[in-house]
Amino acid sequence: MNFKDQLEEYVVLVNEYLDKYVVEKDLPEKSIYSAMRYSLLAGGKRLRPVLSLAVCDMLGGRREDVLPFACAVEMIHTYSLIHDDLPAMDNDDYRRGRLTNHKVYGEALAILAGDGLLNLAFELLLESILKSNENRDLKIRAAAIIAKASGVEGMIAGQVIDLESENKKIPSDILDRMHRCKTGALIKAPVVSSAVLCGADEDSVKKLECFAQNLGLAFQIKDDILDVEGSLEKLGKKTGSDAQNEKSTYVSLYGLENSKNMLNEITEKAVIILKDFGEKAVFLEELAKYLVNRDN
Amino acid sequence: MNFKDQLEEYVVLVNEYLDKYVVEKDLPEKSIYSAMRYSLLAGGKRLRPVLSLAVCDMLGGRREDVLPFACAVEMIHTYSLIHDDLPAMDNDDYRRGRLTNHKVYGEALAILAGDGLLNLAFELLLESILKSNENRDLKIRAAAIIAKASGVEGMIAGQVIDLESENKKIPSDILDRMHRCKTGALIKAPVVSSAVLCGADEDSVKKLECFAQNLGLAFQIKDDILDVEGSLEKLGKKTGSDAQNEKSTYVSLYGLENSKNMLNEITEKAVIILKDFGEKAVFLEELAKYLVNRDN
Repeated sequence: MNFKDQLEEYVVLVNEYLDKYVVEKDLPEKSIYSAMRYSLLAGGKRLRPVLSLAVCDMLGGRREDVLPFACAVEMIHTYSLIHDDLPAMDNDDYRRGRLTNHKVYGEALAILAGDGLLNLAFELLLESILKSNENRDLKIRAAAIIAKASGVEGMIAGQVIDLESENKKIPSDILDRMHRCKTGALIKAPVVSSAVLCGADEDSVKKLECFAQNLGLAFQIKDDILDVEGSLEKLGKKTGSDAQNEKSTYVSLYGLENSKNMLNEITEKAVIILKDFGEKAVFLEELAKYLVNRDN
Repeated sequence: MNFKDQLEEYVVLVNEYLDKYVVEKDLPEKSIYSAMRYSLLAGGKRLRPVLSLAVCDMLGGRREDVLPFACAVEMIHTYSLIHDDLPAMDNDDYRRGRLTNHKVYGEALAILAGDGLLNLAFELLLESILKSNENRDLKIRAAAIIAKASGVEGMIAGQVIDLESENKKIPSDILDRMHRCKTGALIKAPVVSSAVLCGADEDSVKKLECFAQNLGLAFQIKDDILDVEGSLEKLGKKTGSDAQNEKSTYVSLYGLENSKNMLNEITEKAVIILKDFGEKAVFLEELAKYLVNRDN
């Protein structure tokens, strides 16, 4: 199967799973389900769960074991976007080409929808653990990896640094920490947790962690570049917001050309690590290159 | 040990555990730790973890197994208060006798501190499961019970109904559902999860669930009464806010005297269920009565 078809297959698997897991319910609190579904099923690249599934296929794991974990990560990612877009945070009106959650459902319900999705991710993880007879230990470890990555030692730490670095220049080591946490942690987690779920040996887990770390960094640099060079039309969200909020980015710190060079170098680093996994790593390799050239 | 001393012992256990688990860190994102600790260590009755520990002692379980689960519930409770107090939600300035989280740390960090505490609760639960060699199955079940209770089928559902019933009268069945979810779910969860952790038989779990359901309802009715009769000084938060926000409460629906009668009847119901647990239930019995007479 070629890259685009394989990518599409993964995305469909994820979308179908999420659509079935978070269903509309005719209850007095039904608006929370609409609000959660609005953001969860708004499309998006599904990069994080795709990474989980691709690692699973590469390692010969069972997709049905990995899929709930992959989707839990996507729920966590979605909740973080909902909260990030709030007026008190980035105050964004558009996301994935449509109005942000609070613009449609109001701030209060958007906060609750975010809370609900974060909670639901852990409900899903715990259900998966509870149901499993075999590999329970691996599932617990995988869930713990995801939990750590999304918390105050991971993604949330990055958001705090981001918040507090508005309107000021921050040194490059703090910028690195911010991105390693804010974006990197939740790109590493689906890769590493999937490797653990598939019973990969320690050496392979380490290598894949290193691959994901570089991929996450490249992803963030590309994001910073797109905020300067992208268009609302293709990106589905406002551009130029980093500059407007005077945020420190790779572009503001190193300039556009240097950032592009860094993007290519770091992607190359990620790809080289994959060589150890041979032929089977071809999808992940193409995914890394695809991310360099994306326009959204 | 008399009731007050026993209660104090439980509260100290919980406070010490939380104080050690959520430590200040000298990192670029250190403000998130301050913000989480500010609300988590602000005192409070610690009703939920106290219930867990009391059930554990009554059933002869091991406190060290139950304590992390009890504290995870308290973290979830605290995050819900932080988000509930936000300007977009109840817009409250005081909580537990001091300024609310967003009044001190700003809205953005308060949102993240809430997110961080919810996430941390699950990190703690998963760590506890990961570390355990025995009773792992019970721990997974207990964690799943807590997860369900705090999510969109539990506490969050209640908050959504609460939100959407502002400025209008709601029928009594919706009011019941709101309270069963909003307050009841997270009072039932520490009781039931503790019973499960201690290996209680199904019949005992059912009975304790029924006890907790009544206790939760009584707790909410008392809350509604205190919002009318209490004082900011003793309550540590503004009174009269239900009436101001035209919220449906037991008092607004049934009147003050009827609400007081209901409170006594439902507490009596809860206490009667405990008779099956004999002498050992004396603390829980006194706790139920103590909650009727509380002034905060």
